[in-house]
Amino acid sequence: MLPRRLLASWAAQTRALMKWLCLIGPVAATIGSACALFLWSLDRATRLRFDHPALLYALPLAGVAIVWVYGRFGGRADGGNNLIVDQIHQPGAGVPLRMAPLILVATVVTHLFGGSAGREGTAVQLGGSLASGFSRLMRLSAAEGRLVLMAGVAAGFGAVFGTPIAGAIFALEVLSLGQVRYEALLPCLIAALVGDWTCHAWGIEHTSYAIAAGDAGFHIQGWLLAKVTAAAVILGLAGLAFSETLHAAGALVRRLCPHPLLRPVLGGLLLIALVQVLGTRDYLGLGVWSADPGAVTLPGLFQPPYRPFSWLWKALFTVVTLATGFKGGEVTPLFFIGAALGHALAGVLNAPLDLMAGLGFVGLFAAAANTPLACTLMGIELFGAAHTPYIAVACFVAYAFSGHSGIYLSQRVAVPKV
Amino acid sequence: MLPRRLLASWAAQTRALMKWLCLIGPVAATIGSACALFLWSLDRATRLRFDHPALLYALPLAGVAIVWVYGRFGGRADGGNNLIVDQIHQPGAGVPLRMAPLILVATVVTHLFGGSAGREGTAVQLGGSLASGFSRLMRLSAAEGRLVLMAGVAAGFGAVFGTPIAGAIFALEVLSLGQVRYEALLPCLIAALVGDWTCHAWGIEHTSYAIAAGDAGFHIQGWLLAKVTAAAVILGLAGLAFSETLHAAGALVRRLCPHPLLRPVLGGLLLIALVQVLGTRDYLGLGVWSADPGAVTLPGLFQPPYRPFSWLWKALFTVVTLATGFKGGEVTPLFFIGAALGHALAGVLNAPLDLMAGLGFVGLFAAAANTPLACTLMGIELFGAAHTPYIAVACFVAYAFSGHSGIYLSQRVAVPKV
Repeated sequence: MLPRRLLASWAAQTRALMKWLCLIGPVAATIGSACALFLWSLDRATRLRFDHPALLYALPLAGVAIVWVYGRFGGRADGGNNLIVDQIHQPGAGVPLRMAPLILVATVVTHLFGGSAGREGTAVQLGGSLASGFSRLMRLSAAEGRLVLMAGVAAGFGAVFGTPIAGAIFALEVLSLGQVRYEALLPCLIAALVGDWTCHAWGIEHTSYAIAAGDAGFHIQGWLLAKVTAAAVILGLAGLAFSETLHAAGALVRRLCPHPLLRPVLGGLLLIALVQVLGTRDYLGLGVWSADPGAVTLPGLFQPPYRPFSWLWKALFTVVTLATGFKGGEVTPLFFIGAALGHALAGVLNAPLDLMAGLGFVGLFAAAANTPLACTLMGIELFGAAHTPYIAVACFVAYAFSGHSGIYLSQRVAVPKV
Repeated sequence: MLPRRLLASWAAQTRALMKWLCLIGPVAATIGSACALFLWSLDRATRLRFDHPALLYALPLAGVAIVWVYGRFGGRADGGNNLIVDQIHQPGAGVPLRMAPLILVATVVTHLFGGSAGREGTAVQLGGSLASGFSRLMRLSAAEGRLVLMAGVAAGFGAVFGTPIAGAIFALEVLSLGQVRYEALLPCLIAALVGDWTCHAWGIEHTSYAIAAGDAGFHIQGWLLAKVTAAAVILGLAGLAFSETLHAAGALVRRLCPHPLLRPVLGGLLLIALVQVLGTRDYLGLGVWSADPGAVTLPGLFQPPYRPFSWLWKALFTVVTLATGFKGGEVTPLFFIGAALGHALAGVLNAPLDLMAGLGFVGLFAAAANTPLACTLMGIELFGAAHTPYIAVACFVAYAFSGHSGIYLSQRVAVPKV
């Protein structure tokens, strides 16, 4: 009896494992390679932008080109991340393959000319469109295609940030607010690991972040935990404010500029004006690296000098960029805004700067994307296990306070927050 | 509009947070203290057993005492962990308060006389019965009582192993196979943190485990990952075999000894015979610490010398102990059996001994309890973040291969594994 049950479980799961390895392996390797190409291009574009500061003045024009190309050739690709989440919830026509080159080029162009945007939207869309194209090629059933699409999201997310386990959980968690279901567990895990591995194999290195505070002989300190909780409440409300503002700004821009081509002109001019008024270019682009050693960057927010308002400026630059038709993700800016907000709160709460920056990094994203578990794992993958309790409190409390909307409008509510 | 929504979310969630802090704080502190008392007693009992080896010969009698007391005074408390899971799925009469002292004393007695059992069942039952008693005292609604009961499980689990985040996720994950729902997120997180913190405040220190393999500049190695996957498949099947054998042995014992008081006599005599035949006492008790420096212990399995069959003996001792009416959890023995199996597989697969022992530690538990996410977090909390991808693969693949049953019979199937 027992040997038969063992054999049955072994046979069924080995078949499943082999099937997913064969199905997902090649597509995840393709996605990982696409992400490597994307990250490499992004790096080149950012360096070019620093070498040629005048590129910024062409930002309005670059935006017009992006919006025109999307309008002319994009079709449903303009739906972006929301289209992918929709197709997972209710498999339909799939995600068009053209989404992959379009989003890759549009994001690189956005960054080349100085738009403030991210990477995860691009990676998720690369993953989703390649996975969906593969499903059509292999004539997979709707049910299988759905799992492959989730795996594509996991591969893209895992590869672009170098955090495979967070990527796998992200793909399971992002669909519905308040629930993780394990139906696509193996496909997502395989995809994220293969995607990340492939991206590394192309020589891509990810930024590393270090939190020195309390690293040795660490145990929870009640007082610090209270400060972390207070910061998490603010991060949660900031996540809510960010997604609502982003959606409202998009609606406002559509009302102000009925013609789509006018919107990036407005956005580009606003960004140029912001740069002139503030006298800094630190909030353009990805914000992870700068040619100027004195600039505000994401890794720099883990150290002094104290910068109390960086989060506000980065949020402003990002909302203007994303609401006016430029392309890229919301997540790297959210990392930046979150780390800057954590950094600012460290000063107010008298808490370690590096720890609070790290908690803001993942906490704001957890709040805005409603993915606390993926963000907890991401925090662990990026900052190490020593701060696990603080990371989890930051992500889960921020999630609790961010309301029922978020940056992904296609998300459904499975378990309400109160 | 936005300020009003921010205020509404802030007010609602602050109310929830305060409510749970006030409700859960005291009960979690009580549970943490009970766990501290339990761990302290367990340590004393283990030391006493080493000082007085003859205690083993009283094991049959001790078992009779446990079974008699449970039969006379236990009532529904004999339902153990399954009663708690049932009461969370379908709140009814609650968990009787007497479960707490009964399980504490019975587990310590089991360990004092040399039974091979664990701690988590005891911690979960301490948590569940104290939480349920508290709900009745405060006249909480059935819905609230349910959440407090889950929080009690989180507090007990988090405190007894010193892994609060794994404890919180365990309480959410253990109820249904294949699904995590966030309804009790804040209560479980608060409870696990307070429980762990209180247990530490009493001076309890947890065993620490170290995996040195590939600690610096770590990145996934394809070949090692393949070995880990192969080991995880075996861990998954071993988890299935362990829970099925445990249930079958229980049924067999009930058939052989219709009178409940005879069962621990049989079990005790079998354990004494096993000790005589094998000529070792290493598989008695918890297995975490030994007065004999040459003994097989759980931390010792992370190092040479190579012991290819320890897992089998520990499994045998544990099944005999738990199937014949002795008390304690299945989980610490599962840690031991898993670490020993990983250790054995490291030799076969030519993989690092410490890494494979660590993966077996959490992987077998993930398989037998169907809680891969909690076990991944536990692995990270115990062994550090450097091995996150291997830990996750071990837990999730082992989970996939362990079938739809497990050590907790009250678990429901939310998402089937194939």
